[in-house]
Parts: sequence; C-alpha cells; structure tokens
Amino acid sequence: MPFGRRGREHMDIPKDHPRYKSLMTRERLAHMVEEGLVTPTGLISHGRGEAYDYLMGERSIPPAIEAEKVAAAYLLRAKNPVVCVNGNAAALDPENLIALAKAVPAKMEVNLFHRTPERMEGLISYLESKGAEHVLGREPECRIPGLNHDRALCTKEGIYDCDVIVVPIEDGDRAEALVSMGKIVISIDLNPLSRTSCKATVPISDEMTRALENIIRFVEEFRGDEESTLKLIEHYDNKKNRRETVEYICDSLKAGLGAGDD
Amino acid sequence: MPFGRRGREHMDIPKDHPRYKSLMTRERLAHMVEEGLVTPTGLISHGRGEAYDYLMGERSIPPAIEAEKVAAAYLLRAKNPVVCVNGNAAALDPENLIALAKAVPAKMEVNLFHRTPERMEGLISYLESKGAEHVLGREPECRIPGLNHDRALCTKEGIYDCDVIVVPIEDGDRAEALVSMGKIVISIDLNPLSRTSCKATVPISDEMTRALENIIRFVEEFRGDEESTLKLIEHYDNKKNRRETVEYICDSLKAGLGAGDD
Repeated sequence: MPFGRRGREHMDIPKDHPRYKSLMTRERLAHMVEEGLVTPTGLISHGRGEAYDYLMGERSIPPAIEAEKVAAAYLLRAKNPVVCVNGNAAALDPENLIALAKAVPAKMEVNLFHRTPERMEGLISYLESKGAEHVLGREPECRIPGLNHDRALCTKEGIYDCDVIVVPIEDGDRAEALVSMGKIVISIDLNPLSRTSCKATVPISDEMTRALENIIRFVEEFRGDEESTLKLIEHYDNKKNRRETVEYICDSLKAGLGAGDD
Repeated sequence: MPFGRRGREHMDIPKDHPRYKSLMTRERLAHMVEEGLVTPTGLISHGRGEAYDYLMGERSIPPAIEAEKVAAAYLLRAKNPVVCVNGNAAALDPENLIALAKAVPAKMEVNLFHRTPERMEGLISYLESKGAEHVLGREPECRIPGLNHDRALCTKEGIYDCDVIVVPIEDGDRAEALVSMGKIVISIDLNPLSRTSCKATVPISDEMTRALENIIRFVEEFRGDEESTLKLIEHYDNKKNRRETVEYICDSLKAGLGAGDD
C-alpha cells in the first residue's frame, strides 16, 4: 500500500460540496484498478472526461438534455436495443446501467477493449451482483466487421443483431464500426469532438450517471407516445447539437476566466 | 497481469503518428503506478491534462511560449530558484526536469501530495538514477504555512527559502500557499482555469515536456541579458496571457467541430 493518504482526501471536504462526489468517484475507480476491473489507462480516459465535465459546469447542458430525449425515443422504438458496458462504465455506475436496461427494456452486453476471459467474467459477475440479469458477452460467436483483435468479439443475440445500441465511454474505432453496421449508435462521451461523438448517431456529451438518469426519466415520459418519439427523432440534428455543445463550453471557459480574475 | 493487451496498443500505430507518443506516455504512467511512484488518481489528473492539450492542438501556443520566456527570465534573475518535482512530473519526464535544474542552475526538491517515506525515497532515487544530484526532500525540517497534513513538509534550503519556484502539475492549495509566502510561482498546468493557473505568478498552459524544453532554450537565449529579462518580466500580464489561452482553446474547439463534420 504505497499511497499513505489515498482514500482519505475526501475527508477534508464537506459531503455537500460538488467536489466530494467526484473525489469519491476517483477513489472508487482507483480501487477498481486494484480489483482488475478498470485498466490504468481507463483512469486516464476518465480524467479526460472530467476536464470536459468541468468545462460544461458539471451539469447536463440543454443540448445534452435534447440528445437524451432523442436517445430515449430511439430506445423505445427499437426492436432489439442493447446497452453496451465496458470496464469504466461498470465501475462508474453499474446501478444506472442496469436500471436503463430494465426500463427500456434492453439487453446488456459486456464488451471490452482490453479483453481477457478473467476481466469478462469479473465484470459480468460484478454486474450480476448488482442485480443485472442475463448479461451477454461470456460466449461471443460473432465479430464486428472492421475491428481487429479481440475487441471485435460480440454475441449474435446482442450487439451483432441489435438495431439501437447505447455505448457509454466507447472508443472511436468501435463506435464507427457499429455505425458502419447500420446501427443507431447512442454514445455517452463528455468530449463533443471525440471520434465517438463525431461518428455516433446520437452523441450525448454529459457525465454518464446524469445521462443515464435523464434517459431513464425520458423513457418513462415518452413510453407509448408514438407521436412524440417520432417527432424527437425527426427534428434531431446531431451536427447542430454538437455545435451548441461547443458554444456552451466556450461560454463556460470565458466565464471561468472572469471568475479566476477575481 | 489482468490486462492482456495493455502495453501493446501503440503497436497498431505508426511511430511517427502524433498519437504514438501520447500512448507511450500513458503506458509509462500506468507502469509507474505498478511501481508505486505514481498514484492512481495521478493517472486521472494526467487525463484531465490530456483533454486540454488536445484542445490546444498538442502544441505550444503563443501565450504559452510567452509565459515560458518570462519563466526563464525569472529563473535567471533568481537568488535561490527551485524546481519542485512530484510523482506525475517525475514519471512524465525526469530528464527534462533535471536538465532545467542544471541549466538555470536551480535546486530540485521532491514534494508529494500523497507523501510516504517509501514514495519519497523511491522518487528521489529514481531522479538520482536519471542523473540528478543533491535532490532535496528526504529530510524536511520546515512547513509551508496554511497547508495541512504532510503535504506542507519541505526543506529550509529548498522550497522554504527559495524566491522562484517551478511547480509542474501542482495542486491548487499548494500553489496558492507558495504565492502567499511571497514566492514567484511558475506553474506548468494545461488547464488555464485551474486554481493553480489562477494563483501562479507565471501560469504556463502547456504540456510539461514541451514547456521544460522551451524554458531551457530560453534560459540559454537570455542568460546574462539583464535588459531582456527585465523587460520580459515588466511587460508580462498573466491575466491577459490566460485570456489569450482561453481564446486559443475556443478557436480550436470550433475548428475541431468543423473537421468532425466532414
């Protein structure tokens, strides 16, 4: 245990302070690295997300909320929707991933960039311990075309045959390959300029827990409302949405500069 | 070794590709966590930096270069300059930290947020193995006022009595405390809105290796040139410099959006 004070930083900060939650999240992720469920490079990726979240004021900005409504609409209209889960996503918020899959309902499939049988089993067992049922991914019999290595592996029942897929914190190659397969890809990725966000059908630039909670709420709100879901999908323009996201970030940067000058 | 493919991702990318270096850096940092020299939360912090570096186009933008010249001027005019080193900084680029200390010349002192005797000894030995001489920090006899816990510890000869200090990747509390002690604080922190950047005398928003190499070059360029160093310091306006940095980031974001739409 080389890090004497790790795990106790948050004790200096009041529980109602916004930094408390993000420090707790960091400590949970660091712990999950020790457990082998999150990779060290997954921590670096989480840090990149934190930077964008900070630039968006650590809240769901209006273009994110719009994209979350469209995501709910696509999920409600899907024939075979899937929620894709990787190590970082499972570590960050297994409860809300499971809640979204149950709300739609959608299948869940674990799909790892750094795939080993041990990590697959570890993550699926972890999700099952949190209440997930019938998690796919243990026995992949298909490959996503255009991807090399084990990261192409998927199940026929889940990712391969799905029509709508939620990919939280996905890598750009895989998001692009899924779009090329003709799927509706709903990404949750704080960076509006990442390749995942550029390629996804519905890129959501929001922190994962907030995004999932919003989508779950909108799934309940629009369930059975054919007219609203169709209208949401028809009126959605992902380029315009990303442009608005970038404008929010720039406004936030300039406002932050003013605050720093005080 | 739960991560089957870790350490081999970069093999998919040509060596002259800009992503190659950043993947190699990630892998080195991940390895340093296993060695106990970098903390898992240090990886998250590195990720936040990566996001800003990406927004600045992974290059030294003009306001960064200006700040690096001013940093060189302050260092050349200092009576007792110190280069402060923490775990992430040592892991990222020990060679250039040592080269800067030798070029000025300045003392080096290891100062850790997560301080344990083992990590202190590990980091100092690591720097010494890379050619550093007389690294301070093993036997701190002073405290930086206003900081709690062991992170306040420092040596009288180094941090406590220095007039100019370079703090790469510093936490905001400590940067602020050093400024309160009346020191000229030169920070290297990619986020121009971080508390460190807001509080430092000379905040440099640049990737650490590029920043160090530029400062070393300017130290050689301005050595002995009293007039130029004085003029650089007199004309420097850190608020204006940070404002220009933010403008560069916003321009880059908007340009990135255009590229993503192609």
